[in-house]
Amino acid sequence: MKKYIDLIEENLSSFDFGSKPKEIYEPIRYILSLGGKRLRPVLTLLSYQLFDKDFHKAVFPAIGIEVFHNFTLLHDDIMDNAPMRRGKQTVHEKWNDNVAILSGDVMLVKAYDLMLYADKEKIHKVISKFNRCAAEVCQGQQYDMNFESRHSVSETEYLEMIRLKTAVLLGFALELGAILGGADENTCSKLYAFGINIGLGFQLKDDLLDVYADSAKFGKQVGGDIIANKKTFLLIKALELASEAQKEQLNFWLEKKDFDAKDKVQAVVSLYDQLNIKSLTEQKMNEFFDNGLAILRDLPVTKEKKQPLRQLTLQLIDREK
Amino acid sequence: MKKYIDLIEENLSSFDFGSKPKEIYEPIRYILSLGGKRLRPVLTLLSYQLFDKDFHKAVFPAIGIEVFHNFTLLHDDIMDNAPMRRGKQTVHEKWNDNVAILSGDVMLVKAYDLMLYADKEKIHKVISKFNRCAAEVCQGQQYDMNFESRHSVSETEYLEMIRLKTAVLLGFALELGAILGGADENTCSKLYAFGINIGLGFQLKDDLLDVYADSAKFGKQVGGDIIANKKTFLLIKALELASEAQKEQLNFWLEKKDFDAKDKVQAVVSLYDQLNIKSLTEQKMNEFFDNGLAILRDLPVTKEKKQPLRQLTLQLIDREK
Repeated sequence: MKKYIDLIEENLSSFDFGSKPKEIYEPIRYILSLGGKRLRPVLTLLSYQLFDKDFHKAVFPAIGIEVFHNFTLLHDDIMDNAPMRRGKQTVHEKWNDNVAILSGDVMLVKAYDLMLYADKEKIHKVISKFNRCAAEVCQGQQYDMNFESRHSVSETEYLEMIRLKTAVLLGFALELGAILGGADENTCSKLYAFGINIGLGFQLKDDLLDVYADSAKFGKQVGGDIIANKKTFLLIKALELASEAQKEQLNFWLEKKDFDAKDKVQAVVSLYDQLNIKSLTEQKMNEFFDNGLAILRDLPVTKEKKQPLRQLTLQLIDREK
Repeated sequence: MKKYIDLIEENLSSFDFGSKPKEIYEPIRYILSLGGKRLRPVLTLLSYQLFDKDFHKAVFPAIGIEVFHNFTLLHDDIMDNAPMRRGKQTVHEKWNDNVAILSGDVMLVKAYDLMLYADKEKIHKVISKFNRCAAEVCQGQQYDMNFESRHSVSETEYLEMIRLKTAVLLGFALELGAILGGADENTCSKLYAFGINIGLGFQLKDDLLDVYADSAKFGKQVGGDIIANKKTFLLIKALELASEAQKEQLNFWLEKKDFDAKDKVQAVVSLYDQLNIKSLTEQKMNEFFDNGLAILRDLPVTKEKKQPLRQLTLQLIDREK
């Protein structure tokens, strides 16, 4: 796994995004230097190597996926008014909103530039699928913002939102590797479906970690979603299953303006525990991961070649941050 | 000319950009419905018909150019804090900044979608040139914003800024028509150069109209750039040529916080007149348009076929709004 991540890091830092004016290109280099798991481009390379050995051919489009992902983070952080990202100032905080809008726009253009490194005969397919994915990710972000001001959100609506906001990009990252590696249409679709499932599982794991992570390992504040009234799978499920009395308690904390953060987190977690929310969410999460692993198992590729993708999936299930 | 504009309007309003969530797709339809000259897609069609009769084949990529142009307007309006566009509320005013950022992002993606209607073997070239143009337009916008807070800007810097912000998109619109129509590399480059020149002339005409337009025909407030201290070609030239006494007067109005708009416009125009700025700007503008027309004249295409482009250029020179 390390060789793939190193390859991504090397190429991300050596790629010439541009230099002038500095207000556009410094923020691009800045956000890309903040690190992260590089999960999406690694998925592209791991998918590619199922079908072809020369995975260097997939590196630039894979980086395009990471650039696109960071473009969405950059613009989302403006919209969410987020001061920090990966423990550092966000771009709109370090510079300003205008710089963040415009350097983000250029990042999106650069993602398309990187997609053009695909073999010429594959470019129509690659860009066409990338377009669909990119529009869907934006749709997901809009639904996520809409949910903030809504009184209630159903489980189905929530799952559709995270499918758009998170899962389709993992799906496309895997499909892209398959397309570039020369897989047939049906196999490409299966890798997309594998990605959708692990993407949904991945987001539910995120929701779980925010509440139940070991704070020494998590790297962020545990309970952040609860403090911010974020409509996660856990909260939606809790509101669905709560008795009248429990609903009253939940709403008390959701509506309370002045509160001690620790008290609120403790009270809401106690309600989650009464309602068995942790295990219900794990159950749903495992369902998605199991679906994904079943699709991977059925792929007409040797077990040996699929081992890295299987191993990465298991790591996603067990991750502690 | 009318048939081309009608074709653009029809296809712009019938194209299915998407529908859900409405916060993304309503602003896209809204800004595209505000009208405008549709200059850029018309240039693509007029360029295409130099080489091929079946100009319907160029319609979707041509619309892509208009969608891209409107994406830049949408995001620029957020950055410039502009309340109005074509006499109507801007998207960030009618909705909010977040909606404007995100629907703009999707417009950029949709512009790429429309470029994919080019013949498959031309897509790499089209998208590659579109990427370069798109990044340059963003660079131009950043320079324009940077100039606002700078004490002085040179003529060279200003011309480079408007080349990036305005001219390269007209250049690409024409080059795109040539590529789609099957013109050779050299001819495509000439149409790009034609576009750069008429684009520079077009922006200088804009600068002139803002000060010297007939207010009954202009449709906007005459003198808006003067009131806002916008560093136009006229102001830059005036600051360059002014005597110490004149520079003092200009700076007096540039620095004055409380002023009567009419007084300020009158005073600055009077200084422009003393310095012969109108005629100097017209001279520079005509230089660019003449360069453009000379490139068009030398193109190895019948005079008859070039007539619409020539006529449109003459209209741009003489336009009153």
